[in-house]
This record gives sequence, structure tokens and C-alpha cells, in this order.
Amino acid sequence: MRIEAVDFFYLSMPEILDIGDGSQDALLVRLQAGGYVGWGECGASPLTSIAALVCPMSHSACKPVRDSVLGQTLESPDDIRRIGNLVRENSLDLLQADHTLSGIDVAMWDLLGRRFGVPVYKLLGYERAYPKTPYASVLFGDSPQETLEKAKRIRSQGFRAAKFGWGPFGKGSVQADEEQLRAAREGLGEEGILLVDAGTVWVDDVHAASLRVPALKACRATWLEEPFVSGALGAYKKLADMCGPVKLAGGEGCHNFYMAQQMMDYGGIGYVQIDAGRIGGLSVAKQVAEYAQVKGVTYVNHTFTSHLALSASLQPFAGLEDHFICEYPVELKPLAWELTREHLLPDDNGHIHPPDAPGLGLSPHVEAIRKYLVDVEIRAKGKLLYRNPDL
Amino acid sequence: MRIEAVDFFYLSMPEILDIGDGSQDALLVRLQAGGYVGWGECGASPLTSIAALVCPMSHSACKPVRDSVLGQTLESPDDIRRIGNLVRENSLDLLQADHTLSGIDVAMWDLLGRRFGVPVYKLLGYERAYPKTPYASVLFGDSPQETLEKAKRIRSQGFRAAKFGWGPFGKGSVQADEEQLRAAREGLGEEGILLVDAGTVWVDDVHAASLRVPALKACRATWLEEPFVSGALGAYKKLADMCGPVKLAGGEGCHNFYMAQQMMDYGGIGYVQIDAGRIGGLSVAKQVAEYAQVKGVTYVNHTFTSHLALSASLQPFAGLEDHFICEYPVELKPLAWELTREHLLPDDNGHIHPPDAPGLGLSPHVEAIRKYLVDVEIRAKGKLLYRNPDL
Repeated sequence: MRIEAVDFFYLSMPEILDIGDGSQDALLVRLQAGGYVGWGECGASPLTSIAALVCPMSHSACKPVRDSVLGQTLESPDDIRRIGNLVRENSLDLLQADHTLSGIDVAMWDLLGRRFGVPVYKLLGYERAYPKTPYASVLFGDSPQETLEKAKRIRSQGFRAAKFGWGPFGKGSVQADEEQLRAAREGLGEEGILLVDAGTVWVDDVHAASLRVPALKACRATWLEEPFVSGALGAYKKLADMCGPVKLAGGEGCHNFYMAQQMMDYGGIGYVQIDAGRIGGLSVAKQVAEYAQVKGVTYVNHTFTSHLALSASLQPFAGLEDHFICEYPVELKPLAWELTREHLLPDDNGHIHPPDAPGLGLSPHVEAIRKYLVDVEIRAKGKLLYRNPDL
Repeated sequence: MRIEAVDFFYLSMPEILDIGDGSQDALLVRLQAGGYVGWGECGASPLTSIAALVCPMSHSACKPVRDSVLGQTLESPDDIRRIGNLVRENSLDLLQADHTLSGIDVAMWDLLGRRFGVPVYKLLGYERAYPKTPYASVLFGDSPQETLEKAKRIRSQGFRAAKFGWGPFGKGSVQADEEQLRAAREGLGEEGILLVDAGTVWVDDVHAASLRVPALKACRATWLEEPFVSGALGAYKKLADMCGPVKLAGGEGCHNFYMAQQMMDYGGIGYVQIDAGRIGGLSVAKQVAEYAQVKGVTYVNHTFTSHLALSASLQPFAGLEDHFICEYPVELKPLAWELTREHLLPDDNGHIHPPDAPGLGLSPHVEAIRKYLVDVEIRAKGKLLYRNPDL
């Protein structure tokens, strides 16, 4: 069968708040081939990824992503990898291409899974899926008191792990951060797994980050996530060497396999966090999971949007029993929650299971999300390049 | 003074050919502040960078690039660096942002240079500019005979160095590549500096690349450029260790400082090639030039578009006497040639000089290029986000 259609749908909450909440909009991808349909989701900035899908060619290594996808044969996982390589080659100079490809790659896996009647993780080569321990992923409160209450609430909801990030953390005094960390630990209780996300706040400033290390150790944080931007490998390595037993986590900014590889090879991270909607989809994410095993690094998903994206992000490490922590966003905006008919809810033991159903195992709730569809129109060179298709 | 306007102009040849020629379109940037105007140019895929300029915010770390630029104070080089950092922070999750920022950064330096009446290289901290030896940058011919004729023509034009790249190289047999290399060497003569650009054709396949090493050595290539994609540092290092005295060159794909740093730290390259229109502009390019000196790596510009981009790309290493080779495209499409009123032509010794005039020292030839202006219109969320402004 051949890929007959690749449609992008830009969904958005009516109002976008200036906060670190990635669930406020979404770029949904629908792929059609041989009578089957697959769904995926790309990372942030829907309009820019739409432009990368349909832009006019600049030269032979800067073509619109769509040109390497439409009309291609799609029969097997090898076809998916071949199409991904085509995109990377034909859109080498198109920076946004990796994000744009990501949702398409996810949709191709979903489509093949539906066609063959198997979960995506099986197509990826895993015999079975293991349960994951979800960590509730939330923003730090504006005050330690607010963080304390969030942590207590998360604990009372049955979560054994929680990650606090962004908000005021790292932007004020060291003491203010210590108070935030103590509040989070107190709220989670002594047994809770505490994870901390600095959201690249120190860019590549090792000294600023190191000032927070004593408090991270005292509060027994399991990891410190993204103290620096993804490329600052030297800074990562220096901090990693001084913060044990707290480990560094990072990788959500990686938009190809090599970036993730380098964070493991040179950055000294203990956890590699991959966003399937950014790194080039499940094909590349699985490659990272394999490399992580070789390097003794733990793979974790990065997910801050819908349960479609959550299911996708679980597939690449579904079969790795020891890599048991998974990110689980608990403050989703209605758009992200309503995006799928089904949801991945913790079982009685508090575990999350990748769906045991064909493809990603979830379907977009088309009727519910139509109200979030953004009208988009892009014209260039006298042509209508994009108008949101029928959903 | 404050930045009052940032205008992007998408220029294109009437027909875009499916060849590795980056001069077929351009994204021209015009910046206005305090009655001054500055000009710059972004790398490939104009439409995608326009989208990144004007897209709706997704969340606090995914804002349109324009939001971090318009209204900002612009009085000094420190302001330019501050604005660049703002863009990187506010558009962290917007992959295309680095390319979009690049042209804006160049335009800010041009504007300040014009305001203070000094060349940009002086604002960047160099006392004087040294002449550069240009290498004619061309595509391999479709046949060795065609390559031979190109090389002879380049030599007869007075060039002492030439780079052949892309086209059929690396895609056929090892023998075919050997014949191409011999033809290039023969055409340039024994004394000519021969540079070879593989255009990432082997992705990360060290073995495929290594098969060409004997011919590269036999033809005394000075460098082999981009055997692999920018991130494949392990592959770069392995090949670097087996190909001396031929050195590896790379870096045009880098879209931030860290990527270039890693190619020097871990990839073993001998030449770092920076495209000011991609890496984040002159601020970041200068940072790379400084690091290259520390590492004993030679800085070279990557330029395949207009002479405005050429002047910009020379500024970050204008004051480095020992880094004397510069890329000089000689097969420019009319659009790229006509983009500026003035041109950087070799002097009687065959050298290129960064202009000794305020800013970048060249002005866009507005009347000449108006005919290449592409009509673009982007609408989303009921708003007209972009329509090409008056040029």
C-alpha cells in the first residue's frame, strides 16, 4: 500500500497562557494508506511544523517534508525507517523537519499496528510490555506552600513518584529553591520518589547549578533534570561528577539520535528522556532505547501532552522491565485530555500499562476536539499550500 | 533606541531546480531602530522561518521569535547578545528558531555598524581585517570530464583553491569518485588547493567513507568536508584518525554554539565551517571562532548564497590572520548576485577583503530584487499573521 494522505490538524485552547504547560495546543497527524488510518502527534509550534510540511523547495537538500512521505510504499517497519531516512536526507537544511517528521513517524507505526492487529511495541520488537511506575509531572507552585499542597495531593492520589519543575525554580535565590525542594519532599513523604526539573534555567552555568546540589542531596532527589540546554555536554559532565547519588536527566530537547547518544557518551546523564514527538518519532526513540541499554542509562519518556502522545512515548521502552519509571502528566488542559476517547489510567497498583491493542491502542475523539481546531491558511507563490483539512 | 520593525522578505528564482545549489532562494531580513536600518539573511526554507517568526505561542518556552525582538533596546553589542539569549530561552521548544534568529542577529550587527560608522568586524572586537584566500565553491560535474573543465576554468579565473561537492560524489562506485577527484586535481594543477565536500552522503557510515580515503590522499585533498551528518561525532572521530594528512571539515549544519564545540571537542575536525545564517548569527559565529583558536582548529565560513551573506560570514573571523581560507560561491543564481549593489571581488592578488565600510558594507539592491519577491500570506486563529511587507 502507498501513503495517500498526510493531514495535519492544529488544535489549540482558546487562550494560551504564558506558563510552562505544553498541553495547551497540539499538532495532530492523520496518515492514510490502503484503507487504513494512523494517528500521531508532533511537538510544539504547530504552525511552524505545518510550514515545514508544505514549504516550497529551496534546493535538493531542503524540500518540504511531505514530498518524502506522500506516495511512498508502507508495508513494514523497514519502510517506516526508509521514509524517515528520506526525510532527513531531503530536508537536511530544513531545521524544523525533525519535529515535523516525528508525528508522521508515530502515525506510520500506528497505522501498521492497526493493519496487522498488534500493538506498536510488538512491531518495534518487544515480546511483551511491562507495567510502568508513573510519576506525576507538575509545575512547581508559586510558593513552597503551594508546592507542599500539590505534593500532598499527588501522594493522596496514589502516586509513588512526582516531578516538580519550571515555575520559579532556579530563578530566585538558592534558599528559595531549598524551600521548594523541602516542601516537595515533605508533601511526598519519606518514601516518595522525588524528581526535579530545572527546565534549562542555568543554560550552561555549572556554578549556579552546583549551588543547588546540597539541597538536592538532602532532599534525596532521584534526578535533576535539564539543568542545562541539551547541547551543553561539558557542563552536564562537570555537574554529573559532583552530584551523585543524585543523577542527571535530560534529552527532551534532542531532535535526532545523535544528540541523545552524545548526552550519554559525553554528558554523563543517568536518565535519557525522549520525546517521541520531537526526536523523529518511534523509530529514532527505539534506537535511543537500545543505545541506553548498552550504556547503562535508564530510558524515560518525555510527555506533556495528550494520551495519544503518552501511548506513543511508552512504546519505545515498553519491553524494558528495568526502565520502569514513566512520565505521566496530571495537569492536562481539556484539549489534551479530550483528544483521545480512551485514557491510560493507573491500575490498582498504581501502574500504567501500554495499551494491549492494535497500534497505539487509542483513538482520537474527533467530535470532541473539533471545537479546538485552529483555522490556518498558508499561501505562497500564488498557491494555497495549506488549509486545515476536514477532521 | 528600540527595535521598531523586523521584516522578512522571501525571494526566489522563478524556478527552483532539484540540485544542491543554495542560491536559488533567500530570506532577507530588514531591521529598523532609531532611524537606522540593518540587513541580514537567514538560511534555507524561507517559509518555515517566516512561520517561526510569527507563529502563535504554544507555551512559555515556545514563543514566536518576533516576540523576543520587537521593542527591545538596541544600543550595543551586549544588547544583541542579550536579545539572542532571550530568543533561545523563549523559543527553546521551537526548533526552527535558530535559523530565524540568525538573519535577525546579522541585521542587528549591520544596524549598529552603520550607526557607529564602523565595520561589523570592529564591533566584534577585531582591530583590523586580513585578506582571505577564496576557494571557488562549485558542484562536481556530472562526469569527470565536466569536473575537469570546471577546475580548469576556475584556475584560469585566478583562483588558487577550489572546492568540489555534492552532485554524483559518494553516490556511485569508489572508482567513479576516484575519477572525479583525479579530474579535479588535474584541472586545478599541482599547486592548487583541492577541497572536497561529500555533502553528508555517507550519513554515519565510516566504512563507506574510508574507501575514498586513498584517493583523497593520492590527490592531496586539503580537507574532506561533511562525510557525515553534523551529529555523528563518533564517525567523524574514527575517520579523522585514519585520513591524515587530509583533515576533516564540517559544521555548516550546526545551529548553535554547542554543536560546533562538540565537533571540535569530540569529532576531531580540523576545519570548522560556520554558516552565519544558521548558527544564530554573528554573535554565535564569533564565539565559535574564539573556541576554534583555543582548540587549534581553523575557522572557515560556509556561504552559498548572496554577497550580503558572504560579507556577514567573513566578519566573525576577519581578524584571524592564520585562518585565511574563505568559501566563495562562483555559480550564484541571478537572484543571489543581484541581491546587493556592491560585490566582494578578488583583488589583483586573488584575495577577498571584508568591506572596510560601516556595518556589512553592502546594501541590498532593492529595485533589482523586487521582481524575485514571493507573495506569502499566513493566517491562523482568525488573524493575518504575515503578508510580505513593502520592500
